[in-house]
Amino acid sequence: MNYKMMGRFISQILFIEGTLMLPPLCISLYCGEAMAVKGFVCTLILIFALAGIGYLLCRGAPSAFYAKEGLVCVAVCWIVMSLVGCLPFYISREIPKYVDALFEIVSGFTTTGASVVPEVEKLSKGIIYWRSFSHWIGGMGVLVFLLALAPSGKGTGFTMHLLRAESPGPDVGKLVPKMQNTAAILYIIYVVLTVLNVIFLVLGDMPLFEALCHAFGTAGTGGFGIKNDSLAGYSPYLQNVTTVFMILFGVNFSCYYLLLLRQWLGVFKDEELRLYLGIILGSIVLIVLNLRGYYDTLGETVRHAAFQVGSIITTTGYTTTNYDLWPTFSKTILLCLMVIGACAGSTGGGLKVARLLLLLKGLRRNIRQMLNPRKVEVVRNNGKVVDEKVLANTNAYLAAYMLILFILFTIISLDGYSVGTNLSAVLCTFNNIGPGLEAVGPICNFSIYSDLSTLALTWGMLAGRLEIFPMLVLFSKSTWSRN
Amino acid sequence: MNYKMMGRFISQILFIEGTLMLPPLCISLYCGEAMAVKGFVCTLILIFALAGIGYLLCRGAPSAFYAKEGLVCVAVCWIVMSLVGCLPFYISREIPKYVDALFEIVSGFTTTGASVVPEVEKLSKGIIYWRSFSHWIGGMGVLVFLLALAPSGKGTGFTMHLLRAESPGPDVGKLVPKMQNTAAILYIIYVVLTVLNVIFLVLGDMPLFEALCHAFGTAGTGGFGIKNDSLAGYSPYLQNVTTVFMILFGVNFSCYYLLLLRQWLGVFKDEELRLYLGIILGSIVLIVLNLRGYYDTLGETVRHAAFQVGSIITTTGYTTTNYDLWPTFSKTILLCLMVIGACAGSTGGGLKVARLLLLLKGLRRNIRQMLNPRKVEVVRNNGKVVDEKVLANTNAYLAAYMLILFILFTIISLDGYSVGTNLSAVLCTFNNIGPGLEAVGPICNFSIYSDLSTLALTWGMLAGRLEIFPMLVLFSKSTWSRN
Repeated sequence: MNYKMMGRFISQILFIEGTLMLPPLCISLYCGEAMAVKGFVCTLILIFALAGIGYLLCRGAPSAFYAKEGLVCVAVCWIVMSLVGCLPFYISREIPKYVDALFEIVSGFTTTGASVVPEVEKLSKGIIYWRSFSHWIGGMGVLVFLLALAPSGKGTGFTMHLLRAESPGPDVGKLVPKMQNTAAILYIIYVVLTVLNVIFLVLGDMPLFEALCHAFGTAGTGGFGIKNDSLAGYSPYLQNVTTVFMILFGVNFSCYYLLLLRQWLGVFKDEELRLYLGIILGSIVLIVLNLRGYYDTLGETVRHAAFQVGSIITTTGYTTTNYDLWPTFSKTILLCLMVIGACAGSTGGGLKVARLLLLLKGLRRNIRQMLNPRKVEVVRNNGKVVDEKVLANTNAYLAAYMLILFILFTIISLDGYSVGTNLSAVLCTFNNIGPGLEAVGPICNFSIYSDLSTLALTWGMLAGRLEIFPMLVLFSKSTWSRN
Repeated sequence: MNYKMMGRFISQILFIEGTLMLPPLCISLYCGEAMAVKGFVCTLILIFALAGIGYLLCRGAPSAFYAKEGLVCVAVCWIVMSLVGCLPFYISREIPKYVDALFEIVSGFTTTGASVVPEVEKLSKGIIYWRSFSHWIGGMGVLVFLLALAPSGKGTGFTMHLLRAESPGPDVGKLVPKMQNTAAILYIIYVVLTVLNVIFLVLGDMPLFEALCHAFGTAGTGGFGIKNDSLAGYSPYLQNVTTVFMILFGVNFSCYYLLLLRQWLGVFKDEELRLYLGIILGSIVLIVLNLRGYYDTLGETVRHAAFQVGSIITTTGYTTTNYDLWPTFSKTILLCLMVIGACAGSTGGGLKVARLLLLLKGLRRNIRQMLNPRKVEVVRNNGKVVDEKVLANTNAYLAAYMLILFILFTIISLDGYSVGTNLSAVLCTFNNIGPGLEAVGPICNFSIYSDLSTLALTWGMLAGRLEIFPMLVLFSKSTWSRN
């Protein structure tokens, strides 16, 4: 294990995290929030001290870096980032328990949006900004950010392994030959879309601070609101803008790159994008039909249905209405969408539409092979033959996904809440969505759970964001063995 | 498609089904149950007429028989058997709706044990016997029975394909070189264990008729009770006997064959058996710890916990207590056991312990491969290398399993019951268990659902019993294509 290289990398990540904490500190200073200022300052001192010591200790690291180290490095980075990132909440006493503060920041970084804060509107401005901004940092991935900045002289193995471990989806595609450039392009698209979102919100008379916070949550498909009722109090225009941008941020970012290259046909023929949009449209239609009579007008029904569908399939988690009161059929569709999740290569979580597509195609292949055992069939995606290894990994992913689901489900059941509550709590955190159903529904929060359950769900959020395996290899004996 | 061969085979199955209906007819005649007698006689006339016509029409079938035909034949056989097998319930007016009667007999044949009958004790003796006996028929499989009787001259492809499609588990092992002999050995073990079960029950002062009905349900891991409160009213001795036999019938039958051959070590070292017994023991311990204070004595707690764990992991579905009142942790363990199911090659349903083992091992292999991409790893089971095809099929099975779960879950949610009720209803029928939680819990029944949901769950039970693929290929275009 190349500990020195990992140590240096973690120091750099900490340095970036500290830098990103300066804007909320300025906001708190401007608003005169003494406790929040204290929280940020103490944390910043700790962060820069740690980063400095780490950097000094880890000079002269050997450059060999393998897949194993990439996985471990990503997992450890995210854990360290969270352990220190939650300190402002804790030191400022705005979230009095450390376990809860950790849950909150992990929920932020993993773009989950599940909260333990009962009254969001009582938080100070600086803390609200940091909470929402954590979505934006976690959405595209802070490692990707560092790679986008890094000098291109470093070994490609290093960047490749890190990107592969942090990026969502079954297979990481390079947009351009150099990985650094790919990371930079992704970040440029991300920034441009976020800015567009802010502009559209401000045009609808939303104050700039609120527009920024909402755009961060939308871009990262996070979902921390800044009001107790999430987006229910905003105008239909603002809700519709958010619906559109949530769905846009759930699209594979390589589609936008193709658009920049004017390869319209490539985007139009992308099977994942078609399935993603098809599922969204189908779900909206089914829910609108099911919701007849729940709202005054058809327009209102469509608006709420589209918002909730967009919010849940992209795993954002904003709400405009208490969908826990909807009929069971609509709730069940939302539960299914939670599992599916957004497109691979987007900022959203869940199983990913690309994986669903591969699983369905693999299944069809297997049935055909069962009917004609002598014929050899391959699986194709967008016309290209899919490597059997990718299929095997997708299946292993599903197995790991189910296994973790059941383990978390069993652990949190110790707290005694209903089966429906627990199931939706696990699905919502593990898939990085946010609010669930029943006792963790849109108008409730996760503070009901015990410390053990909170920690289990926190681990689940990290596992969900990092696509399970980086968090699983930490428990594997062969990760820590010498050879 | 070799329709003639299939037609002749179905005729034979119908003939056997008619023969098996003679004992309940005799019981109804003896007890003077006029309506039930009418039901059986009308059904028998229809069955023998169909079997005769089918046999005459399908003479001179070509002997070529492929995997595809094996799958379709098994699926069609089970559907036809169910369509006529439910007629006694319907004609005797003891279950007034045909859809409900179909659900009940499919629940019997698939050894599910979920019921639409609100008052079991009001049914006539003949009908109760047929209902329980359907478990025994379905447990080992009626096709296996026919194969055990069949002259050994037939093509091995024929028997192999049928056995493979009807038997539970990821890989069908031959006990002896000839498939017919394997089927015969399985049936002999099945009969001997059933007889032993009846003897032990009668020794505990259970009347012979009740002992027979309970033994049928235990042997097939079915679970139709003959009392409204299932086994709650019987003595602790009778409950414990049932616990032991349920667990015995959940063991892979090839283990008993090894015992007959005195290969003690082979049984002791069987990884599936060890995991199966380990899960049972672990679950009992956890539930007993969780249930402190629920019952008067520790002995009573252990008895109820062991009974429910044995009943649910083997997918039998008998109950001695209303476990829906247990704390959520215990209920969650039972939900997890529902998904796991019994051993492959037993009469139980679910995902099967063997598949769980393969999934876990495949996952471990994948993680290791991720850590050391250049090392080639194989998966071993009981020391032997597992074929990659079996692993791929196991993964495809999990994908199909999840897909069907979600589709059924969505369809029945149209009826508006709670998420917990629907989830447990789908898990309990699809895994062939029986009673679920909440509104379909041990003291309730499935008559609450609409016709559409009832049909969906009926299809689900068949899919669960036949290991999904025979019921899926019916929907595949390439099954019905000419080449």
